[in-house]
Amino acid sequence: MSEQWLLGVDLGGTTTKLAFLSQNGEILYKWGIPTDNSNDGQNITINIAESMEQKLSELKLTKSHLLGIGMGAPGPVNYEKGIIYNTVNLGWPDHYPLMEMLQKATSLPVAIENDANCAAAGEMWKGAGNGSANVLCVTLGTGVGGGIVANGQILQGYRGAGGEIGHITSVTEGGARCGCGKTGCLETVASATGIVRIATEEIQSKKNTSGSLFDLYQLNGRISAKDVFDCASKGDAKALFVVEHVAHYLGLALANIASTVNPEKIVLGGGVSLAGDVLLKPVQTYFNKYVFPPIKDYTSITLATLGNDAGVIGAAWLIKNHLK
Amino acid sequence: MSEQWLLGVDLGGTTTKLAFLSQNGEILYKWGIPTDNSNDGQNITINIAESMEQKLSELKLTKSHLLGIGMGAPGPVNYEKGIIYNTVNLGWPDHYPLMEMLQKATSLPVAIENDANCAAAGEMWKGAGNGSANVLCVTLGTGVGGGIVANGQILQGYRGAGGEIGHITSVTEGGARCGCGKTGCLETVASATGIVRIATEEIQSKKNTSGSLFDLYQLNGRISAKDVFDCASKGDAKALFVVEHVAHYLGLALANIASTVNPEKIVLGGGVSLAGDVLLKPVQTYFNKYVFPPIKDYTSITLATLGNDAGVIGAAWLIKNHLK
Repeated sequence: MSEQWLLGVDLGGTTTKLAFLSQNGEILYKWGIPTDNSNDGQNITINIAESMEQKLSELKLTKSHLLGIGMGAPGPVNYEKGIIYNTVNLGWPDHYPLMEMLQKATSLPVAIENDANCAAAGEMWKGAGNGSANVLCVTLGTGVGGGIVANGQILQGYRGAGGEIGHITSVTEGGARCGCGKTGCLETVASATGIVRIATEEIQSKKNTSGSLFDLYQLNGRISAKDVFDCASKGDAKALFVVEHVAHYLGLALANIASTVNPEKIVLGGGVSLAGDVLLKPVQTYFNKYVFPPIKDYTSITLATLGNDAGVIGAAWLIKNHLK
Repeated sequence: MSEQWLLGVDLGGTTTKLAFLSQNGEILYKWGIPTDNSNDGQNITINIAESMEQKLSELKLTKSHLLGIGMGAPGPVNYEKGIIYNTVNLGWPDHYPLMEMLQKATSLPVAIENDANCAAAGEMWKGAGNGSANVLCVTLGTGVGGGIVANGQILQGYRGAGGEIGHITSVTEGGARCGCGKTGCLETVASATGIVRIATEEIQSKKNTSGSLFDLYQLNGRISAKDVFDCASKGDAKALFVVEHVAHYLGLALANIASTVNPEKIVLGGGVSLAGDVLLKPVQTYFNKYVFPPIKDYTSITLATLGNDAGVIGAAWLIKNHLK
């Protein structure tokens, strides 16, 4: 028999991504299924098992061709026990024994981890982290997620909340309300949602009723985070003001995390990171200003390279390491 | 032969503390020698070796009674390679092979680590950390030091700067100059030095020329951090203002670190921590306000219990784990 494969699973609220990978982290086959959160979420592991069996059957293979299953899930995870504490969208009760349920459904070894931590492991293994033992991965999307690899291991923390950097308090006075219940979280500033909010507030303040961002807002009745970065790239003053504001808080947060966990590489992913240099350059400037000086030249900030594949790749890394 | 002992060494700029410990972390004998940083620091390891031999001889024992030596040193350390990057006070060149030099001088296995990380390991093992796998230890003294234990391991980071939380940027605008080269570090606010500076500025601002702290300053021409806490305990308005200011920045920093590494226990040590509840209570209030809500009730903030012994105990833990 040829070398066994790994199954990586990236469980999302609406879609579950699956992939067979080589033990070297190469994606061989990938596909997706809808996430069915009805019936208290009890169909989720069954559907994954059935989809896996079906794909193996299509490839004229059996389960013995798989070494095991790694899975990222959206919520805080206890890695040792294989339980997920509290998820909002999946129907599961608190302390759901996800590892055990997926093992039962598949009869294969399973390891589970928080999805942002899986993405960090993926970027560390095969992406911008380039195999470094110390990586911070930040996903700037609708929200802000994070994962930390330290000493070559995922930093889980006591309650699976290691790397929850979207909920660092960035704005101590008068910050916007966050979904987590407090105000002023990094997520309220550096997510796509936060950027749109800040830009809209800036436009509606009527301090300056001109410029390309203002015109876009007048035309469409709203603006996107991409609009902000596009206008900033062209020198629009309002857009540049917003980007500077965002970059200040993001650069400060990354600097303070770096002074705490000292990563070699900081990898920025998610939709907002597609802005590229117009965001990266001012973030780097603020990072340099605020970070512990001896590590400034030993910390790189780069863009993620795996896109949506980071989750399944990191999940595969997880089970590979679990079985080592 | 009875169970072998561990030698724990805590190297300071003026004094080197040494202790023989049982493998269970109990201090059996402890003593100190002056740190001799002349001759490019080359006497340091030789003096440790001689002092160890002398103590063994006094106890009518030989080196075979020792399993190995753990040592904390003041500077960033590469644990794997056993080198120390740059130390200010010890005379060593950059990248000094400390582990190798101490091994040569003693013919025993050696592990070295940053001193603040050793103290954190000590508190984790035998002190307030109570064996938890996830502990943040903060030393509030002349400066602010920190060490993180995550997944049961010391978080070293890429360049040995893991846990350098004294250099988190707390004050982004108009902060005081720090020894590290930047401004507004947590150390400029939450160290004894920082507290004295803030209090002195407050007194000299002449906004309110009354109260017990003001009187002490008039009497002695200066005040100490202890004066500030003593006066705050008695309700002095100026002193309470200073403590509130310090607690705000410290509580915010601890909350943001907790949202990043999710420790079970945060242990505060050093001279400033002796203030006790007058500091701890407002720190806890700000921590609760700023931390990621799901972990608030799963993170305790307590006082260190090992005092000056934390370093040698953590050093002993280090070599015990190194040889496992």
